[in-house]
Amino acid sequence: MSTDSSGAGPESEIRFLLDDRAAALRAKDADGVLARHAADFVQFSLAPPLRWTGTDRSGLDSWFSTWKGPLGYERRETNIVSREDLAFCHGFVRLSGTKTDGTHNDLWFRQTLGLRRIGGVWKIAHEHDSVPFYMDGSLRAAVDLKP
Amino acid sequence: MSTDSSGAGPESEIRFLLDDRAAALRAKDADGVLARHAADFVQFSLAPPLRWTGTDRSGLDSWFSTWKGPLGYERRETNIVSREDLAFCHGFVRLSGTKTDGTHNDLWFRQTLGLRRIGGVWKIAHEHDSVPFYMDGSLRAAVDLKP
Repeated sequence: MSTDSSGAGPESEIRFLLDDRAAALRAKDADGVLARHAADFVQFSLAPPLRWTGTDRSGLDSWFSTWKGPLGYERRETNIVSREDLAFCHGFVRLSGTKTDGTHNDLWFRQTLGLRRIGGVWKIAHEHDSVPFYMDGSLRAAVDLKP
Repeated sequence: MSTDSSGAGPESEIRFLLDDRAAALRAKDADGVLARHAADFVQFSLAPPLRWTGTDRSGLDSWFSTWKGPLGYERRETNIVSREDLAFCHGFVRLSGTKTDGTHNDLWFRQTLGLRRIGGVWKIAHEHDSVPFYMDGSLRAAVDLKP
């Protein structure tokens, strides 16, 4: 939708925001992550419950504490549709790292974001992360798929 | 974001679209569903693969054919953020019905949509449907949650 081959425009601004937030996630910097979220942020996360709301950092900190060392967090095929102060985007994220119990995780998931420009600054207002699940008796999450 | 207490405006138009598509889904009317999708529609569905693209009706028809009789399809807490010709929304959907093998299904899932107004008509450009999964050894999809 937006054209920004010049490097200007909403799409470039949003890519910067996403890169900054990814860097904060890799560094397990909760304040750096939350600084990119709108005050009324609503998340549909990989883990239950169905919905998380708000910008309370305790949930994020306790999730970070389950990982040993830095996280891998890589975006791919991020498709952004933007207007002056509203945007949505979708793509894939690869999350990898080692849990404190020594288990190595490496997972691709789908990510959709809703963004608003508030006071001239883009913020993530909504995040939806998921994997599909196998429609057999197992109902197992499809954590083995790659884009 | 949009205010439409008068019943006019993007948010009302989008609610009409979503109601119309829900009616088409309940009636297993593939043409009625696809008429509400943009030509470059991208879906992150409950079932694999990670991503579906396009408006080919064969996938939808074959999914409909796995259900006996009409479907239940009910939206709840649909939150719409809209501008003149761009919008995203998120909420919950209850999908219910009886499979051809007699199994009864009743599932709540999260739904995020990205919408564009194309030639004056709102279309769904992106759909992301999911349930979270349990982060225990089972990796089982959380199909038992209610909003």
